[in-house]
Amino acid sequence: MKQRGPPLARLTPNQGADPMTLLADSDEWRALRADADALANTTMRALFAEDPKRFARYSVEAAGLFLDYSKNKITDDVLDHLMALAGAAKLEAARQAMTSGQPINATEGRAVLHVALRDFAMRAYHVGGENVSPAVERERARMKAFADRVHAGVHKGFTGKPLTTVVNIGIGGSDLGPLMATEALRPYWIEGRRAHFVSNVDGQHLADTLSQVDPQTTLFIVASKTFTTQETMTNAQSARAWLLSKGAAMGVAESDVSRHFIALSTNEVAVTAFGIDAENMFRFWDWVGGRFSLWSAIGLSIALQVGFSNFERLLRGAHAMDEHFRTAPIRDNMPALMALVGVWNRNFMGCASHAVLPYDQHLHRLAAYLQQAEMESNGKRVTADGAAAPAATCPVIFGEPGTNGQHAFYQLLHQGTDLISADFIAPAFSHADLGDHHQKLLSNFLAQTEALMRGKTRAEAKDDLIAEGKPPQDVERLTPHKVFPGDRPTNSIVMERLTPETLGALIALYEHKIFCQGVLWGVNSFDQWGVELGKVLAKAILPELGAAGEDMALAEAHDASTNGLINRLNAIRAGNGKG
Amino acid sequence: MKQRGPPLARLTPNQGADPMTLLADSDEWRALRADADALANTTMRALFAEDPKRFARYSVEAAGLFLDYSKNKITDDVLDHLMALAGAAKLEAARQAMTSGQPINATEGRAVLHVALRDFAMRAYHVGGENVSPAVERERARMKAFADRVHAGVHKGFTGKPLTTVVNIGIGGSDLGPLMATEALRPYWIEGRRAHFVSNVDGQHLADTLSQVDPQTTLFIVASKTFTTQETMTNAQSARAWLLSKGAAMGVAESDVSRHFIALSTNEVAVTAFGIDAENMFRFWDWVGGRFSLWSAIGLSIALQVGFSNFERLLRGAHAMDEHFRTAPIRDNMPALMALVGVWNRNFMGCASHAVLPYDQHLHRLAAYLQQAEMESNGKRVTADGAAAPAATCPVIFGEPGTNGQHAFYQLLHQGTDLISADFIAPAFSHADLGDHHQKLLSNFLAQTEALMRGKTRAEAKDDLIAEGKPPQDVERLTPHKVFPGDRPTNSIVMERLTPETLGALIALYEHKIFCQGVLWGVNSFDQWGVELGKVLAKAILPELGAAGEDMALAEAHDASTNGLINRLNAIRAGNGKG
Repeated sequence: MKQRGPPLARLTPNQGADPMTLLADSDEWRALRADADALANTTMRALFAEDPKRFARYSVEAAGLFLDYSKNKITDDVLDHLMALAGAAKLEAARQAMTSGQPINATEGRAVLHVALRDFAMRAYHVGGENVSPAVERERARMKAFADRVHAGVHKGFTGKPLTTVVNIGIGGSDLGPLMATEALRPYWIEGRRAHFVSNVDGQHLADTLSQVDPQTTLFIVASKTFTTQETMTNAQSARAWLLSKGAAMGVAESDVSRHFIALSTNEVAVTAFGIDAENMFRFWDWVGGRFSLWSAIGLSIALQVGFSNFERLLRGAHAMDEHFRTAPIRDNMPALMALVGVWNRNFMGCASHAVLPYDQHLHRLAAYLQQAEMESNGKRVTADGAAAPAATCPVIFGEPGTNGQHAFYQLLHQGTDLISADFIAPAFSHADLGDHHQKLLSNFLAQTEALMRGKTRAEAKDDLIAEGKPPQDVERLTPHKVFPGDRPTNSIVMERLTPETLGALIALYEHKIFCQGVLWGVNSFDQWGVELGKVLAKAILPELGAAGEDMALAEAHDASTNGLINRLNAIRAGNGKG
Repeated sequence: MKQRGPPLARLTPNQGADPMTLLADSDEWRALRADADALANTTMRALFAEDPKRFARYSVEAAGLFLDYSKNKITDDVLDHLMALAGAAKLEAARQAMTSGQPINATEGRAVLHVALRDFAMRAYHVGGENVSPAVERERARMKAFADRVHAGVHKGFTGKPLTTVVNIGIGGSDLGPLMATEALRPYWIEGRRAHFVSNVDGQHLADTLSQVDPQTTLFIVASKTFTTQETMTNAQSARAWLLSKGAAMGVAESDVSRHFIALSTNEVAVTAFGIDAENMFRFWDWVGGRFSLWSAIGLSIALQVGFSNFERLLRGAHAMDEHFRTAPIRDNMPALMALVGVWNRNFMGCASHAVLPYDQHLHRLAAYLQQAEMESNGKRVTADGAAAPAATCPVIFGEPGTNGQHAFYQLLHQGTDLISADFIAPAFSHADLGDHHQKLLSNFLAQTEALMRGKTRAEAKDDLIAEGKPPQDVERLTPHKVFPGDRPTNSIVMERLTPETLGALIALYEHKIFCQGVLWGVNSFDQWGVELGKVLAKAILPELGAAGEDMALAEAHDASTNGLINRLNAIRAGNGKG
C-alpha cells in the first residue's frame, strides 16, 4: 500500500508530449525523480517520527496567513532540488518581469499587472513606457464615488427610490471573483442591501433572479470587457427589456435605462449604444486578465455589497501578500513554496487532481473560483514557446467546504486508488460564535490532515477490530477495508479570522502560486486559447436550432453525433411548444 | 498530439495495488488493452468519417432520457469486449442479486434496495425473508399525510401560524440529495414556501440561515439515521435553543419543540428525548444507504417544497429507469453502457477525472451530489473480497453548469495535458422561455462536445491564422497554441424538459451506473469505511481545542504538524476573544 514516486512517463499517460525536452530533461528534474524513488519506501509518518522539527521547518507565515506544508512527502533534499528547479526556471527573474510590466503574456503581447490594482503606495508600474498607477487610482476613485452615491441614495431608480439591490451580469472572471468574494464577506454585508449574480445564458438563471427583485430598486451591472460576451449581452438585453416592461405601469422610460444599468467595460461605443451613461462605465485594462480582475472595476459589486472601505481592505490584504511574494527569498516565499510543492505532488507523486477544502462555509465558492484561476491559467499542453509541455501541467481542481466534503467525497481521498493532494483552509475564529460549533469544525479540520498523512496500517486496523470485540472471522474479513494507506499530501492554511484582508491575501496567494507554476511548467498562464474553438462552433450551430414550434431542415454539416443531436433537439422543439 | 491507450500499469501510477490479479489479468481486460493500443493511431474524427451510422448505433433511449455515447473512442470491437467484461464480472447476476434483496453490501451485511422505495407496483422486495414493500408504502403514506397537514396549515407553529419555511438539517446523503433535487425542481416550488438546507457544523451556516427565517413559521427537519451525527445534532441543538430563545417573547414553551421539529431517523429514543413527537419521526431502513436516500423519508424536504404529487413523480421517473435497468439487455442498457464506457475511459484511456456538465442552471448542485454518489461508492482500493483493487477505481467527479464552466475550467478540458471524460446534459426546452437564450445554451452544449471530439489540427490552426490575415511570423508563433488535440470522450444526455420524472430517471441512471461500475471493479459500492478514521481522530482532538479566551496545555499527542497547528489555533483563540 506504499505510495511510489514513479518516473515521469508513468505519470503523464495521455499527455501526448515528448517528455524528453526542457525542464523534464534537466538535472534538477532528474534529481527530483531520484528523490521520489528514494522516498518510495518510506512514509510521511516515518518522516515525522524521525524529525520533531518538521513542522517548524516546513511552515511559513505572511500577510496574516500561516502555511503548514510539512504534511507533504518532502525532505530537505526535495526542497533543495525544488529550489534548484526554481533557479533553472528563472523564477525570480520571472517575478521581476511581471511586476515591471513586461509583456509576459507573450501570445497576446500583454503585460500582467493585477498587482498594480492593489498597490496603494502608488508605486509606478510601467506598461509600454507609461506608468499605469495614476489611471488605476483615478478609476478606483470613480468607483468609490459611484458606490458612495448609491449607498447615500443619491443615485436613484426611476421612481426615486434608492437602489438597494444589485444584479451583476457577467460570466467567468466577471462573475466568479465577485461572487466568491461577496459570499466570503457575508459578515460585512451592508444591512438591507442584496447582490445577485447572473452568469449562465440559461434563461432560467436570469428569470429566477428577476422574480426576486423590484425594478424600482435594482441596479444592473453589466460586466464584459468587450461588451460582446454572448452570455452577458444576452442576459443584459433581457434584463433591459424586463426593466422596461415591468416598469411600464410605473412610468419607466427608455432613458431610465441609464439609471438602472452601469457597465464594467472598455467598449464605450457599445456601452452607450446600450443606453448606459459613459459616466457610469468603469474601465479596466488589457493587462488585467479576466480571472485576475476582481481587484479592478469588476469588483464593484463587492464594493456595493460590503462598502468601499471593506473593498479597499480586500485590496490591501492582497497587496500585503504581493509585497511578501515580491521580496521574500524563494525558500521562504509562501506562494512559491505552494507552487513548488504542488509541482512535486503533480509531477513526482502523481497527483492528477487537487482538492481545495475550506473549513469555512462562507468560502463555499472558493473551489469554483480556483477552478477558473488555476485550470484556465495552467491547463495548457504547449509551453509559452510553442513546444509540447514537457510534463503534466495543471491538475483538476475541485472541492467543497469541510465538514460537508467529509460526508461526500473524502472516502476517495482516504481510500481511493489515486493520490490526490489537498489544501485545507481554516480561520481560528468564526464570525458566528455559536456554542462549540467552531471547536468541532476545527477538530475535523485538524483530524483530516492527520488521518490523510498517518493512515492506518493493517496491524492497527486489525487491533482495533479485536478491541471492538469482533469475532475472528469478522476481523479477518473486515481488516482490509479498514486499512488507510495514508501518505496523502496536504497543506494547512490558517488565519485568525476570515476578514477582507485575509481573504485578499488568500486570493493573492493562489494567484502567485499559479504564476509560479506557470513559470515552472513553462506555460503562458495568461492566455486561454482553449476557449475559442467551442465559441466558433457554437456560432455555426446556433442558426441550425429552431425556436419552439419551428420546423428545421436536417443538420448535415457536422459529424453524425452532432447532426443527430441537433436533429433530435429540433424534433422535440418543433413538436412541443408548451410541454 | 494523438491520444494513446497506454497499458494499465501506466494509468494507475499510485494505485499501490498489484495489477496482476482478478479482472485486470483476464482475457477480457487484455482484449480491451489491445483495443486501446490498436486505436492509439486513429482519432474519433476518423471513426466518424468512416461510419455515418455511428450515432444511430451508439445511442440509447430510456425513461425519457436519450444517451448519445458515440463521442467516446469506442468501436464495435471495444463494445464486444466490454460486454465480455460485463459477462466475466457477472453483471446480470449482480443486478438480479440487488433487486432480490440479497445482502450485497457484504461488509455491513445489508441489502441494497433503494429501488423498492420507488416501486409503486408494490412488487415484493424481500430482506431476510420479509417483504419490505408494505412498510415502504406505509411510511410514504405517513409522509404524504404530514406534508398535506403542513400544506393545509393544519400543522401550525407555536403562535398558530402555518409553517411556510423548512430548514432541513442534515449532512452528506441527508443534505445533498434533497438540496440538489429541490434546486433542480425550482419551477415546481409551491408559492410562498421556502426550503433551506443547513449541513456544515460551521456555526455560520446555521446562523446565516436563522437570520433569514421566522421562528413562528419555521419547521426544522432533523435528518440523521442514527440521530448521533455530530454536525447534524450540533446544528439541531443550536436551532432548538434558537427557537426557544427567539420565541421567548412570543410565549414559546419547551413543549412547542414538537411543533417545530420533526425527525428523519430510526432512533426513536433519541428523537423523543430531543422533544420530537414519535408521530413526527419518519423512518427508513438499513437497506437504504445515505447517498441513495432521497427517495425515502430523507426526501421530505423536497415533498414539502414541491408538493407530494411532484415528489411521487420524481419517484416514478426513477422507477421507469429501474425497470429499464432491470430488464434491458446489457448491450442496450443505458446505465450499464454508461458504466462500461466509463471503465473504458478510466482504465484504458487514462481518465483520472470525470466532469459532469449540466446545461441547466437548476442542476447546479448535480456535480456536488454525484461527487458523493460516485466517489463515496466506488472510491475504494480494496475489492469486496478484501483484495487490492486490480485497477484504478472511481475517478474524481467535478463540474459546474454550462455555459459557466466554459468560461472557467474548459480550457483544461480542451488543451490540458490530461484526458478528462465528461457527461453533457441538456433539456430541449427550458422552463423560462426567454428570447433565444435556450437556443444559445443548446448551441454551446452541442458545440462543446463537437470541439472536444474533433479538436483542431496544426494545419487547420495555421490556415485559420492565415485567413485572419496574421503576418507569417505570428502564424508560426501562434499556431501551436491554437491546436486542439481533440479525442476527448463525452456522453450527451438529452431530455425534453427537466421535470420531476426526468430528474428521477437521471438520478437513477447514475445510481445504476455506479452500481455497475462497482461490480466491474469488484468493490463494494455501499460501504464507506474511509470516513471513519477522521471521525475518530477528530473526537480525540476536540478536547484539546480551547474556547475563545481559554488557555490550553500544549498538544503533544500527535505528529509535529498536528500538534503545531493545534497550538497555533489555541494561541490565537486564547489571545483574542473578540477579534
